[in-house]
Amino acid sequence: MLPEPITALTAALGKLPGIGPRSAERIALHLAQTDEPLVRALAQAIVTARERIRLCSICGALTAVDPCALCSDTRRDATLLCVVERPTDILSLEKSNSFRGRYHVLGGKLSPLNGIGPDDLRISQLEARLGHEPIHEVVLALPTDVEGDATSYYLAKQLGARGVKVTRIAHGLPAGSGLDFADDLTLMRALEGRREIH
Amino acid sequence: MLPEPITALTAALGKLPGIGPRSAERIALHLAQTDEPLVRALAQAIVTARERIRLCSICGALTAVDPCALCSDTRRDATLLCVVERPTDILSLEKSNSFRGRYHVLGGKLSPLNGIGPDDLRISQLEARLGHEPIHEVVLALPTDVEGDATSYYLAKQLGARGVKVTRIAHGLPAGSGLDFADDLTLMRALEGRREIH
Repeated sequence: MLPEPITALTAALGKLPGIGPRSAERIALHLAQTDEPLVRALAQAIVTARERIRLCSICGALTAVDPCALCSDTRRDATLLCVVERPTDILSLEKSNSFRGRYHVLGGKLSPLNGIGPDDLRISQLEARLGHEPIHEVVLALPTDVEGDATSYYLAKQLGARGVKVTRIAHGLPAGSGLDFADDLTLMRALEGRREIH
Repeated sequence: MLPEPITALTAALGKLPGIGPRSAERIALHLAQTDEPLVRALAQAIVTARERIRLCSICGALTAVDPCALCSDTRRDATLLCVVERPTDILSLEKSNSFRGRYHVLGGKLSPLNGIGPDDLRISQLEARLGHEPIHEVVLALPTDVEGDATSYYLAKQLGARGVKVTRIAHGLPAGSGLDFADDLTLMRALEGRREIH
């Protein structure tokens, strides 16, 4: 029933994250009726973002300039390095305004079942940075699933052997949440990570 | 914090219907990291949809061929013509599979406050169709707001003077809904439109 160019666009839009079939059709119909310059500007913004965004050659963050703004910022603490899985994890941490060191994106997690070993991640680059940057502490901020845990332990062993302090961000109850919303693993980790209060 | 091409894309995506700032950012980050051919294909689909979709010169529906598939379909009842406000209203009616006649898109509603009069809508085209198509009944399926009502009454008067039967789709309780969910105007119209049951 819908003209072919609209069904084709609906299909393409439906592959974007968080866009279901109904939203995709709604957006496709909207675009087909929008002023042509606006539509071309959107298409151009999509292509430009893909063309101009690369990964920082130092930390692996998404950036339009290399090295990225974070790596070039001399006000950041060069002795602290936070290791994350994906480039977007940096954005989450930056939004929280709670870390003033630098970052290193691994680009994945160790996953023997999927054939992903240490050589498939940016681990050698991480070790190279330890050699020529004044890093005192590596903060692991990887996911808390099985693969993330395995990767954290692997890195702790590898980097610890080089004499650098390796820490891991705390796991426990999320802020504002109660015991009744927490799953078993979260509660177990919250108990393991308990601290004395004064 | 985000690189400029990503914030630019986020802003452009945020103008699409149903896309809030967080979804827009998520999609922009996704696109900046997606394989380039896929990204170019999406941008091309957007431009193609806008370039190839036009309004049917007869009914005003969105179409890639003129006249549209609905107007060219000889199996449809040429004596019944349904008048809608927007091209996408046709899609809603077609999905319901409950109308087998043809359509006419007005392109708006009468709105003296916004300076929209009969000459700004596709009313003369509608009258022309009455002259050379075998239309016996015009079914008005306009919105039930003040402007939609005014437009319906205007058309009923104009077209009725030409001897054609003019009807309006029923207004009342939506299927599956109860009295407690209906607003006053809907209840008033449901009562006005009551029918004897046998």
